[in-house]
Amino acid sequence: MSLKIVTLGEIMMRLTVAGRHRFSQASDFSAVYGGAEANVAISLSQWGCEVEHVTALPKHDFGESVLKYLRASRVGTQYIPRKEGRLGLYFLEVGAMQRASRIIYDRSDSVFSQISAEDFDWDEIMDGMDWFHWTGITPAISENALQLTRKALEAAKKHGVKVSADINYRRNLWQYGVSPVEVMPELISYSQLIVAGQTDLENCAGIQEDTFEKSCEEAFHKFPALKYITTTERNSISADQNELSGILLTPDVSYKTKVFQMDQLVDRIGGGDAFIAGLIYGLEEFGEEKGLDFATAASVLKHSIPGDANEVSVEEVLALVENKNVGRLLR
Amino acid sequence: MSLKIVTLGEIMMRLTVAGRHRFSQASDFSAVYGGAEANVAISLSQWGCEVEHVTALPKHDFGESVLKYLRASRVGTQYIPRKEGRLGLYFLEVGAMQRASRIIYDRSDSVFSQISAEDFDWDEIMDGMDWFHWTGITPAISENALQLTRKALEAAKKHGVKVSADINYRRNLWQYGVSPVEVMPELISYSQLIVAGQTDLENCAGIQEDTFEKSCEEAFHKFPALKYITTTERNSISADQNELSGILLTPDVSYKTKVFQMDQLVDRIGGGDAFIAGLIYGLEEFGEEKGLDFATAASVLKHSIPGDANEVSVEEVLALVENKNVGRLLR
Amino acid sequence: MSLKIVTLGEIMMRLTVAGRHRFSQASDFSAVYGGAEANVAISLSQWGCEVEHVTALPKHDFGESVLKYLRASRVGTQYIPRKEGRLGLYFLEVGAMQRASRIIYDRSDSVFSQISAEDFDWDEIMDGMDWFHWTGITPAISENALQLTRKALEAAKKHGVKVSADINYRRNLWQYGVSPVEVMPELISYSQLIVAGQTDLENCAGIQEDTFEKSCEEAFHKFPALKYITTTERNSISADQNELSGILLTPDVSYKTKVFQMDQLVDRIGGGDAFIAGLIYGLEEFGEEKGLDFATAASVLKHSIPGDANEVSVEEVLALVENKNVGRLLR
Amino acid sequence: MSLKIVTLGEIMMRLTVAGRHRFSQASDFSAVYGGAEANVAISLSQWGCEVEHVTALPKHDFGESVLKYLRASRVGTQYIPRKEGRLGLYFLEVGAMQRASRIIYDRSDSVFSQISAEDFDWDEIMDGMDWFHWTGITPAISENALQLTRKALEAAKKHGVKVSADINYRRNLWQYGVSPVEVMPELISYSQLIVAGQTDLENCAGIQEDTFEKSCEEAFHKFPALKYITTTERNSISADQNELSGILLTPDVSYKTKVFQMDQLVDRIGGGDAFIAGLIYGLEEFGEEKGLDFATAASVLKHSIPGDANEVSVEEVLALVENKNVGRLLR
Amino acid sequence: MSLKIVTLGEIMMRLTVAGRHRFSQASDFSAVYGGAEANVAISLSQWGCEVEHVTALPKHDFGESVLKYLRASRVGTQYIPRKEGRLGLYFLEVGAMQRASRIIYDRSDSVFSQISAEDFDWDEIMDGMDWFHWTGITPAISENALQLTRKALEAAKKHGVKVSADINYRRNLWQYGVSPVEVMPELISYSQLIVAGQTDLENCAGIQEDTFEKSCEEAFHKFPALKYITTTERNSISADQNELSGILLTPDVSYKTKVFQMDQLVDRIGGGDAFIAGLIYGLEEFGEEKGLDFATAASVLKHSIPGDANEVSVEEVLALVENKNVGRLLR
Amino acid sequence: MSLKIVTLGEIMMRLTVAGRHRFSQASDFSAVYGGAEANVAISLSQWGCEVEHVTALPKHDFGESVLKYLRASRVGTQYIPRKEGRLGLYFLEVGAMQRASRIIYDRSDSVFSQISAEDFDWDEIMDGMDWFHWTGITPAISENALQLTRKALEAAKKHGVKVSADINYRRNLWQYGVSPVEVMPELISYSQLIVAGQTDLENCAGIQEDTFEKSCEEAFHKFPALKYITTTERNSISADQNELSGILLTPDVSYKTKVFQMDQLVDRIGGGDAFIAGLIYGLEEFGEEKGLDFATAASVLKHSIPGDANEVSVEEVLALVENKNVGRLLR
Repeated sequence: MSLKIVTLGEIMMRLTVAGRHRFSQASDFSAVYGGAEANVAISLSQWGCEVEHVTALPKHDFGESVLKYLRASRVGTQYIPRKEGRLGLYFLEVGAMQRASRIIYDRSDSVFSQISAEDFDWDEIMDGMDWFHWTGITPAISENALQLTRKALEAAKKHGVKVSADINYRRNLWQYGVSPVEVMPELISYSQLIVAGQTDLENCAGIQEDTFEKSCEEAFHKFPALKYITTTERNSISADQNELSGILLTPDVSYKTKVFQMDQLVDRIGGGDAFIAGLIYGLEEFGEEKGLDFATAASVLKHSIPGDANEVSVEEVLALVENKNVGRLLR
Repeated sequence: MSLKIVTLGEIMMRLTVAGRHRFSQASDFSAVYGGAEANVAISLSQWGCEVEHVTALPKHDFGESVLKYLRASRVGTQYIPRKEGRLGLYFLEVGAMQRASRIIYDRSDSVFSQISAEDFDWDEIMDGMDWFHWTGITPAISENALQLTRKALEAAKKHGVKVSADINYRRNLWQYGVSPVEVMPELISYSQLIVAGQTDLENCAGIQEDTFEKSCEEAFHKFPALKYITTTERNSISADQNELSGILLTPDVSYKTKVFQMDQLVDRIGGGDAFIAGLIYGLEEFGEEKGLDFATAASVLKHSIPGDANEVSVEEVLALVENKNVGRLLR
Repeated sequence: MSLKIVTLGEIMMRLTVAGRHRFSQASDFSAVYGGAEANVAISLSQWGCEVEHVTALPKHDFGESVLKYLRASRVGTQYIPRKEGRLGLYFLEVGAMQRASRIIYDRSDSVFSQISAEDFDWDEIMDGMDWFHWTGITPAISENALQLTRKALEAAKKHGVKVSADINYRRNLWQYGVSPVEVMPELISYSQLIVAGQTDLENCAGIQEDTFEKSCEEAFHKFPALKYITTTERNSISADQNELSGILLTPDVSYKTKVFQMDQLVDRIGGGDAFIAGLIYGLEEFGEEKGLDFATAASVLKHSIPGDANEVSVEEVLALVENKNVGRLLR
Repeated sequence: MSLKIVTLGEIMMRLTVAGRHRFSQASDFSAVYGGAEANVAISLSQWGCEVEHVTALPKHDFGESVLKYLRASRVGTQYIPRKEGRLGLYFLEVGAMQRASRIIYDRSDSVFSQISAEDFDWDEIMDGMDWFHWTGITPAISENALQLTRKALEAAKKHGVKVSADINYRRNLWQYGVSPVEVMPELISYSQLIVAGQTDLENCAGIQEDTFEKSCEEAFHKFPALKYITTTERNSISADQNELSGILLTPDVSYKTKVFQMDQLVDRIGGGDAFIAGLIYGLEEFGEEKGLDFATAASVLKHSIPGDANEVSVEEVLALVENKNVGRLLR
Repeated sequence: MSLKIVTLGEIMMRLTVAGRHRFSQASDFSAVYGGAEANVAISLSQWGCEVEHVTALPKHDFGESVLKYLRASRVGTQYIPRKEGRLGLYFLEVGAMQRASRIIYDRSDSVFSQISAEDFDWDEIMDGMDWFHWTGITPAISENALQLTRKALEAAKKHGVKVSADINYRRNLWQYGVSPVEVMPELISYSQLIVAGQTDLENCAGIQEDTFEKSCEEAFHKFPALKYITTTERNSISADQNELSGILLTPDVSYKTKVFQMDQLVDRIGGGDAFIAGLIYGLEEFGEEKGLDFATAASVLKHSIPGDANEVSVEEVLALVENKNVGRLLR
Repeated sequence: MSLKIVTLGEIMMRLTVAGRHRFSQASDFSAVYGGAEANVAISLSQWGCEVEHVTALPKHDFGESVLKYLRASRVGTQYIPRKEGRLGLYFLEVGAMQRASRIIYDRSDSVFSQISAEDFDWDEIMDGMDWFHWTGITPAISENALQLTRKALEAAKKHGVKVSADINYRRNLWQYGVSPVEVMPELISYSQLIVAGQTDLENCAGIQEDTFEKSCEEAFHKFPALKYITTTERNSISADQNELSGILLTPDVSYKTKVFQMDQLVDRIGGGDAFIAGLIYGLEEFGEEKGLDFATAASVLKHSIPGDANEVSVEEVLALVENKNVGRLLR
């Protein structure tokens, strides 16, 4: 597929405790890079799209490491300023059985949070693009990042670029004095496709309804540009065992996939990003119903792969949609 | 909680085969220290109790390593003599699927087995203490260790210290010419709380009844000081999948928790010790019913953590009791 | 058991990606040696049989490593020529959840594929032997290997050696211009026991029937020497979770074991070889019904053990047949 | 030795790239905790001193991990407040051959940098103590940390506690608007023993002389309380090969040790801290000349041990002073 | 530097035995990709050149992995056909002390060896390029690869592209029936710069003189286009300790660097490639004398870095040229 | 070479601390099996001798592992009883720089120490053998082991088998009430070749002379059967750097090899065993002078190889004798 896509967002170093140990037992960490939007970028690039990722990176070696990581997956890096400062990072303790997974964030004051709208010429970036993807994490980071998102969205609109957003409400962000309901509705209004659950809609769009369906109805009403609301339903039986299904609503129709059993999860980080990447790809290639199946299957497969990125091919995702090769040994 | 607790027992080095290999394939071992009673000590210390652990350790570096390990968890080490000799150890092959886990013990002639009652001033140790915990492993090791247990129990009684015991009958111990039924009843008679299953009661208290309930009735009759008999019911579906529930009996009432599904066990060693620690803590803090829930949940969480020690907080155990956060990703 | 057994077949280096990573993420590989027939040899040798494995190995160090590996398990190596050339190898990406496991073969032009019938004196090899085991992989490799198999089978017949064969049809082999249906029926005709599923019978014996049972009936008709057809039924719920049962047919009777649940598979490579080894041993020791139980239980246990070889004792297999010790902690 | 010692300073997580890789190749890190002053504390505690370390730690799990680490070595932790915020950290790329080792610091805005003088009752802390050790890193971190150091020094003077300081000038600190020459002379004036090289004296005491000896003369003149200036001379032949000698000056005498060849360095972090700990211990136990030998030998041995802490006994250091057991195999 | 460079050559997977073990003890391998010419490409790309690498890769996942590897370092991959077949590979046993390092090659019949001159439009590739680098390994692999080299060189000449060659005579290649002296002189005649020692000149250019200097004189005579002959002098004291110096000859002048001591080598594979990359860069940027220093220092640093690629910056190489920062700890 | 050799001695599990950590930091151990005499057996078997190793092993899995280990190297295991009891083991902390390596032995009460002379039919074992090798470790272990050694030596004499002995005086053995000078002279008197230094001769043969040469003179006088006294001279510059030379004395001549520099030692355990194996082989194949060179070169190479066994070929040893290939990269 030859879709041209821009993604915007912070990339962090994830430091995962080795060997099922707890933070208090940790002596070894494995490091990967990732970020909600960059994860989407990598999925789409691997599936044949031309993707540019917009972010800021520190001048030190880990900045270069992130560039290497993006380039390896053919994600464009030409709009990435290098700045003095730190790379955001977080520590992950992987849960087991009933014991929950836990994250210690250490992302404040990263170079991305200090990014300035002036660092980018959005007209140049958006020119000729088909799609722009952002998430609610970016405006939650800092006033600067909020302005940057706004500028990007204005340019996307000006250049006729379709917009998708993962609302992704995070209570522990939004620390800079602005409430999401004050600013997110405007940003959402630029978007044709959003990933949002009921609480996201409540916290970021100020929509309080009894059911998810009613909240969506209200959202379609409130945001005329909006064509799709999508989400996944996750049932956490244990840290190792989840169930996942995908939901897609238009103002007229709603779709729901079957429930995928996910036993012995390998890595759940990036599962949501794999879903939205799958939906962007799937809607274009396969339409609404099969597109949702594709997105959900892509997300399921992500849970079997270490790291943030969804290292699967279109063929592998389609095989799962058709329930082929499941758990087999392919010689 | 400010309970003051004494525990008594051997600490060994556990050498676990790396990477699901069998003993016959083993080339790498990871080492942790642990012992049934020290595991209880660490749990209780982490939950805020003041705990002294009484044992003996070799003079060489691994003796110092054990001290470091105890001190790290704030377990008191002032009553631990260092002696010429060896540290008991055992090798663990972790099972998988239907294949059972296996242990090769190599604990004979350890410094603990040669410990002498004269090495300790039990009056000093028990003075001001609230609780003393011992297990049936100690008197099973050697004549010396039996005498030591007896002295400790006499002192506990003298100083009004409550006593708990994990009967823990092990056929491959008791090699020094004494049969458990000859000596255990006397030791048990000092205890207010015991962990015992039906076979434990048969082998160590000489109680042979048709059902566990009847055996307990008989035990309450035989041991007037006894207030609680407790045990866990474990169903081993496979080496990776167990079911666990907790049972607590008083002379009047009996409690049983729900059955916890434990899939993808990480480390079952210390699961029973986590239970009894949870019960000591739980009875004091929450009473009988919730105390048993707390104990069982603590034991379940232990199965998700590598090593002998139960590295969980009171809050985490209580969350599982209330079925909160199970298998989630806590940001 | 004092059965004297000859096995024939290629041994390869298996390079397994470490840590659940995909090929595209691989930076570390663990290496083991194995081959369908050698895996059978090792099982039988460990259970007390006298086994000679016939193969060819390169002159370089990995050839010596394979010899060490065989000798360690008491498998005879006196009929193994060392030749200039390469050791066949393959890369394994271990699947997870719905994601399938995958193999990249790199075995062409190995020294085994260039093996010559003249390298061996089959009269000497077969003399005094009780059993000869071969698989459909060998004649699929090269014209030379086909000739070699034929010579071995002729000698087996001449010396009154019983013959078993794992048909094991592999589409990606058979590249040297011969179709299996042209040559396999003759080779099969020497065998008293074959492992074959319906597709194997179709592709290698040219038998096309509606059901496996009918195909077997036809096979018994077509191959008068044949006494047993056996196979396993595997249900791949996921890469980590399979179900397995064993089937054994004679011209008169058919047996099927219960279905074994295999959760959290450790290593499925060699599972089929463990089965046929178990059946050869089981038929001799326990007869048809219990022999099949033994074979299936042996195969189940193999799935819990890293590497190609089934490092289990007869006692462990029998315990599983009787559902003893399952998933326990044996002190 | 029963010296009672207080140390003050930040503790960070050190994340060392595994396996001689560069930052740009890093995927695994090993984590240890350490800090210049805490490293001194641990050395002295292991050699029998009673040590309290004063610092601040975050409320999250890594704060608890640091406490565990200190307690394991018997370092007192009663004056350590837990605060909301981050733990300072740094990444280490270990050099090889001519290639230098490199550090990426990520310590800004740590809880320690936000520590307040009001968090501590220095009268209580210093009461009954024999020695107080601080370094020039602490006042370099933040205005708060500067005030804290000043309060500590005032209390030390008031309570008659001896003071040692490692001047340790770091250009990349001192970012909060104060120049070291403005404030360090006052702080140094409280100290009886300082570790300082010629550039330290220039940058922190404003002393510019032609030679180190003259600078020291000037320093003794400027700081009447000062009895000892000490330093190590390190010759970096390569990242793996250094030469080290120790120097100690009093107003009257100067001592220099022999040059120790250090080939195949294991870990040079903490080498200076091992030296000053050795000198504090050595001056008390052995006097000036042998004390300096002890300090230098302690530092040499530190370079052979992974981690920040110098895990050596007094006996081992003394053996090296006497050139015994060097590189032997002690059975 | 904005030099535009083309490199041509095979890329293999290198499987290095983990942990100083011998092949006969090997159970774990780490995998990196590399090839003499691609190593040069990566060095130059990292230093700012625009580089296209020409090769052929298999269709399976490891082909994609190689592309990822090249892209990560900004090496252009647009002229790389993907073909059915295998990736060449080799196993490396790293020596220690007097014990030599050893390689088991397994590269025959790789897709690169079957590459066809028709797979490439050399006019398109060479157009606008400044430099073309090849090595004597390529024509040694197969008749096809020889033809390909010839076509590339003809196109280079036609487009006025400067040519460098690493003669790199390997006795164990050249197996396809052609002798190097028959074909290499023609190929060398296109080159302005060659890396060659005395034996290379003898085996590949048929030049037999008493000394390297005389051989070079003869070579300049025989190959009029040749401006530079260069080589390194390596003294292998042990597997861990080498000495290295660089030599550069023009028809008129000769340069030799100082001797660099290399103790505790980390990885010597790619050391020669780092040298030639350094010389290409150095001659353009710094001229002959300093260029040779740059090349030799680059090669020295390579020996300190795991993997084939020389992950160093121009600044780091220049620092070593000026003997700065050697073995230091750069904070 | 077709020499038939018997060796006698205990095999232990060696547990080596991973990653240069100290015992007090150890959490991972790698396990190998070895023993002074078995190490000799493996060397000689790899060089073509027919070797039987006599020992006793426990019935549990590690006993089987030792058998696998011996069989892999073609060492005969037919005279090895399996007994109830433990396998001796020891822990090794590998030194670094000036820091010495250290061993914690845990070998008491092993099955070997309880071995009985009645367990073996020495007439059968010695029949047809050429050489018997024992060490002073065996009689030092227990009264039983002493008797066993005596019986073996008597049988060797009776069957005309040549005898070599590594005197190997260990102060921390000989704990069972017998002094080496009481029993060793008789045992030594059976031997034609002994490895002994001056202190060995003093402690085990009661020979006190000023110099090693004089002690040897006296030994040749005292033990008429003795033809060779040999030893190595080791200079421990650091744990990583040793110098080694070999010495061989006959009653008439004395030989000394050059001094081998051993930098960056990989594993020194088994270095002496490699020497004596080399001398047994070398004397037979190459005579006294070259035999000593062979022995010393074999020992040097052992220091470059992890584990107890000397995994080198005769060709590799000879290459080092001739100073060929030292530290090279052999393609």
